[in-house]
Amino acid sequence: MSSQYGKKLKISIFGQSHSPAIGVNIEGLPAGIKIDSEKLHTFLKRRRPGNNNTSTTRTEEDIPEFLSGLVDGITCGAPLTAIIRNTDTRSSDYREFRDIPRPSHADYTAHIKFGGFQDASGGGHFSGRLTAPLCIAGGICIQILQKLGIVINARILQIGNVCGTDEEMMLEIFKAKEKGDSIGGIIECEAVGLPVGLGDPIFDGIENRIASIIFGIPGVKGIEFGSGFEGAARKGSENNDGFYMDGNTIKTETNNSGGILGGITNGMPVIFRTAFKPTPSIGIEQNSVNLSKSENTTIKINGRHDPCIVPRAVPCVEAAAAIALYDAYLDNSTVLQGDIN
Amino acid sequence: MSSQYGKKLKISIFGQSHSPAIGVNIEGLPAGIKIDSEKLHTFLKRRRPGNNNTSTTRTEEDIPEFLSGLVDGITCGAPLTAIIRNTDTRSSDYREFRDIPRPSHADYTAHIKFGGFQDASGGGHFSGRLTAPLCIAGGICIQILQKLGIVINARILQIGNVCGTDEEMMLEIFKAKEKGDSIGGIIECEAVGLPVGLGDPIFDGIENRIASIIFGIPGVKGIEFGSGFEGAARKGSENNDGFYMDGNTIKTETNNSGGILGGITNGMPVIFRTAFKPTPSIGIEQNSVNLSKSENTTIKINGRHDPCIVPRAVPCVEAAAAIALYDAYLDNSTVLQGDIN
Amino acid sequence: MSSQYGKKLKISIFGQSHSPAIGVNIEGLPAGIKIDSEKLHTFLKRRRPGNNNTSTTRTEEDIPEFLSGLVDGITCGAPLTAIIRNTDTRSSDYREFRDIPRPSHADYTAHIKFGGFQDASGGGHFSGRLTAPLCIAGGICIQILQKLGIVINARILQIGNVCGTDEEMMLEIFKAKEKGDSIGGIIECEAVGLPVGLGDPIFDGIENRIASIIFGIPGVKGIEFGSGFEGAARKGSENNDGFYMDGNTIKTETNNSGGILGGITNGMPVIFRTAFKPTPSIGIEQNSVNLSKSENTTIKINGRHDPCIVPRAVPCVEAAAAIALYDAYLDNSTVLQGDIN
Amino acid sequence: MSSQYGKKLKISIFGQSHSPAIGVNIEGLPAGIKIDSEKLHTFLKRRRPGNNNTSTTRTEEDIPEFLSGLVDGITCGAPLTAIIRNTDTRSSDYREFRDIPRPSHADYTAHIKFGGFQDASGGGHFSGRLTAPLCIAGGICIQILQKLGIVINARILQIGNVCGTDEEMMLEIFKAKEKGDSIGGIIECEAVGLPVGLGDPIFDGIENRIASIIFGIPGVKGIEFGSGFEGAARKGSENNDGFYMDGNTIKTETNNSGGILGGITNGMPVIFRTAFKPTPSIGIEQNSVNLSKSENTTIKINGRHDPCIVPRAVPCVEAAAAIALYDAYLDNSTVLQGDIN
Repeated sequence: MSSQYGKKLKISIFGQSHSPAIGVNIEGLPAGIKIDSEKLHTFLKRRRPGNNNTSTTRTEEDIPEFLSGLVDGITCGAPLTAIIRNTDTRSSDYREFRDIPRPSHADYTAHIKFGGFQDASGGGHFSGRLTAPLCIAGGICIQILQKLGIVINARILQIGNVCGTDEEMMLEIFKAKEKGDSIGGIIECEAVGLPVGLGDPIFDGIENRIASIIFGIPGVKGIEFGSGFEGAARKGSENNDGFYMDGNTIKTETNNSGGILGGITNGMPVIFRTAFKPTPSIGIEQNSVNLSKSENTTIKINGRHDPCIVPRAVPCVEAAAAIALYDAYLDNSTVLQGDIN
Repeated sequence: MSSQYGKKLKISIFGQSHSPAIGVNIEGLPAGIKIDSEKLHTFLKRRRPGNNNTSTTRTEEDIPEFLSGLVDGITCGAPLTAIIRNTDTRSSDYREFRDIPRPSHADYTAHIKFGGFQDASGGGHFSGRLTAPLCIAGGICIQILQKLGIVINARILQIGNVCGTDEEMMLEIFKAKEKGDSIGGIIECEAVGLPVGLGDPIFDGIENRIASIIFGIPGVKGIEFGSGFEGAARKGSENNDGFYMDGNTIKTETNNSGGILGGITNGMPVIFRTAFKPTPSIGIEQNSVNLSKSENTTIKINGRHDPCIVPRAVPCVEAAAAIALYDAYLDNSTVLQGDIN
Repeated sequence: MSSQYGKKLKISIFGQSHSPAIGVNIEGLPAGIKIDSEKLHTFLKRRRPGNNNTSTTRTEEDIPEFLSGLVDGITCGAPLTAIIRNTDTRSSDYREFRDIPRPSHADYTAHIKFGGFQDASGGGHFSGRLTAPLCIAGGICIQILQKLGIVINARILQIGNVCGTDEEMMLEIFKAKEKGDSIGGIIECEAVGLPVGLGDPIFDGIENRIASIIFGIPGVKGIEFGSGFEGAARKGSENNDGFYMDGNTIKTETNNSGGILGGITNGMPVIFRTAFKPTPSIGIEQNSVNLSKSENTTIKINGRHDPCIVPRAVPCVEAAAAIALYDAYLDNSTVLQGDIN
Repeated sequence: MSSQYGKKLKISIFGQSHSPAIGVNIEGLPAGIKIDSEKLHTFLKRRRPGNNNTSTTRTEEDIPEFLSGLVDGITCGAPLTAIIRNTDTRSSDYREFRDIPRPSHADYTAHIKFGGFQDASGGGHFSGRLTAPLCIAGGICIQILQKLGIVINARILQIGNVCGTDEEMMLEIFKAKEKGDSIGGIIECEAVGLPVGLGDPIFDGIENRIASIIFGIPGVKGIEFGSGFEGAARKGSENNDGFYMDGNTIKTETNNSGGILGGITNGMPVIFRTAFKPTPSIGIEQNSVNLSKSENTTIKINGRHDPCIVPRAVPCVEAAAAIALYDAYLDNSTVLQGDIN
């Protein structure tokens, strides 16, 4: 079992929705990097619930406490650990789900995997709350990447069937919420300023690395790079990205490759889209089973929950992309022949 | 850099398109498993070129030679290594691509990453030929999974814009070929018979594990599980999979989750779709640059190549899924409390 | 960089001597295991300073706080994180060592590695204090191994030149202390009750695994298994361990192999010895250099410190051995041929 | 199970004593490095049997064939795989050891671990023959390190009880051989020219890394760095290495630390000693058991074997040290603050 990610940068996420704290341990950050804590708080705020009327009413401050790895706000080369205390927890909301698993949640699979010993309260280690430590790690990586001239931006592309303005998409969420229902969506993410040459062949390509971490965000069910699934419907002559010289820089005329060729960055923006399923928690009666009685039953979920996680997932996607790309950056083997031949 | 995959089963793929051999090293296979070599050859044949009129005319026997790990065809617990000699190579076809990178191929990124020392011939380590050792490893895993009651099947879902019968889809390939063009497509893969509980939370879920290896197949630009991108357009009430008792077995009424909840198998078929871009090699003139002269130029690719890699990629997708799932199977932590509390 | 250990059980140690907290993250503990916290405290007490007159006068309670991974004292399958707050810190003691590295300490190498950004206070991440989280992880593993019938015991074999009774060895420490000097020693550790078959060939043998973690304890400069260095002076006829039947159990007449053959446990006790150098902190003037002035100087260390770390290292050696052995236990591949052929 | 080593440089060793071939796969070699094959053959010859009258009469050419990773003798960035065909094999010699395990060999533990499916012939994957691929990998690393100004030298320090001239030590081997007996010994290894700052705190220190690979050489039962076990008998005032300026370079007056402080190189020579047990194969009758009959028996080993593996192990120790140190070199995190703050 592993809630760890990375080659040179090792990210370990820990905690459960209602454990004393959640947090992250980061190994491999170079020493001497100043972390701007205000900037980090601003970033973390974007993930917090309660930013707008559509999300859960659970209020969390989510101010990270740094336990190690920093001296006067500067990385010291030792593992960096940050935690967030869980304060506003209401375990009783979730008591019943130990026996009656919520459809399309991890309740049932966790129950089997951990033999009934899982922390069922609030989704335990599977809770979306665990994206807060992901965002701490990612927020730090975003700051470092910015110093290296690399900028990552994600945005909502689609909510339900609507690809439109923010207002139109938010309206879709309200409409779902009114009915006690939920709705899914798609986030697009772009990273610009990457050098050519990050990523490795076959299993450690940038696509593999990004996909591998993005599926760590609860609710993600698909990812595509560049022209993705649409590109699969095209001819080579339509989808290929011709090269040209832009001054002394090699660029491609189109970017259907999403900035990645053979798993390796080609200097164009890395672009990918991520599909989020609708929040499985809905206030509508659903079929389920009683695990201890082995019989059919129904369930209606009354706890607080987001009708759509997509707005809060935007910084999570940025965080995940930043971790993957900064790890690839650190892992990039220097070509040594100049030095030694 | 790493062409390795896996936690308990460690797969290392080596070789270049025109190196003396390509091959695979597999660590972690349990001892005492009989490998049916005829069955393996039959499986590998599905990946071979020349199976039908649409694919490259390069003829390769692709009979693996086992160098280690077997005694009388039975695994002995030591690492298993198998190689395929490269015989039918025509390096001259590729000489020019060292200077003029083929659009949407890895020529340019490999050139930068490896400082001009990459094996440019035939795509080197980035060649689709490297899926042969992937299929050796996967073919072995498929055999073992079958003994465990787990069956994996992939099929072509779409070629270009056509989702139809095999004949209609093959026709699309011929039409592209006639014009010297190429075409992409989508493969769907299903694994049935999996126990509940494989996979781990957050970064080691089944989606992460499968995505991480599938993007190792050249040409893959997207992956989605269950209802995937379409599910992102739905309401929770439409997309959630209600539970019910089928005799003593817990099943879901629908399988929009693709058999995976919280990264963990729920006993339903694991289903995913993979988007393949059109083969970048086309016989139509394209824009490129001359790397040594830093100037714009054009390129027309005359070597043998598949107008569509999708038909030959079907066994590769099965192989990759088998490796990921068997690795997750071996990695599955036993709940020990029964033994020790 | 990595302060992580393990294959199936992943131990990450974090913290600096004077950071807000030190701690450990443990991934891979099976769910459903009851942790006896009183037993754990008793174990941790053995490592604490101030147990006898020979050790440092710094007083630390070292009561771990569990942040995650437990529900009502039982493992839940999620990563387990425990921390210890650093309270009794006196940074001023160490201020001067930033410029004048203490001989045979990590001050100088950390300074170069981390470009002057290391946490110099109290030895930072290199402090012996970091063995407290190691002991938390090890103390938990010891409890689990005991339930599996595996018992680990370490003891002091030698202090300075004295291999004798505890009193004689403690006297050596007092004698060193009186002179402001320090002294080294040897610890022997034995694990009994291990099944045959743990460990793997070549790089993942039990010797490799134990050595790899034992050198993580500050001050360790050597390790030997079974007859070790003395065995190197012997003939095969003297050193070989003949097999014999003890009822239905296969045993060896002698145990010069230290319970390990080909990296794999043979059912006999695993025995190893570890050499600890004398504590580098001494109250005697020593030669050093001033890093900012690049000139020779001298240093006399006045802070509190143990004249001999060996007594407090005994539980650390047990902890490290327990982690290595329990990880090997969990990592042990089941031979599947019975099930599937 | 894993016969893999390394963080940035991943070494996988495969093969059995009597499998079609043995070999090594190396991932992570930078591109553009010229491998001097003659120099490599010369290095491999030092490990070959038959160099002098004391070793086994099995003749092996051990010329590696490179299957991948090289273009015209220069690394291309793809995984490098080299194999050696097994030609001179005599399986019949070993047939009986399947039932009657040789004392202090891996026959018994391999039998249990792999359920009787292990390759018993010639020691299988546990054979000393597997050090040939280790030496291929190590020989390559030695060449690269030399270009970086780092030189590794090992030598025999002791054979049996004799620490003397080569002639005296060889005489000890002949004396053991005459009696059908075997003898152990100690090898000392030194690496000079290392930069300050290689290695990482706690579990990834240079001691951990070197120990972890050195115990992969069959017959190793102990390792010590610097003053090692002898240092454990000393006072701090005797064992500490005072710093001084040698021109602009910081050095230590003594090197009892073996060039490593806090797991990190300090610029002084890295020095370690390795204890090899006497070859377990002896021509003298020994006690063993019959595994299929579960009864006591005796065994006398008549096959060819070295009375002392220490002379042939010298290049193996150099190879292992070179791999560990070059991996640490590649893994060394660059301090980035200069670039980005």
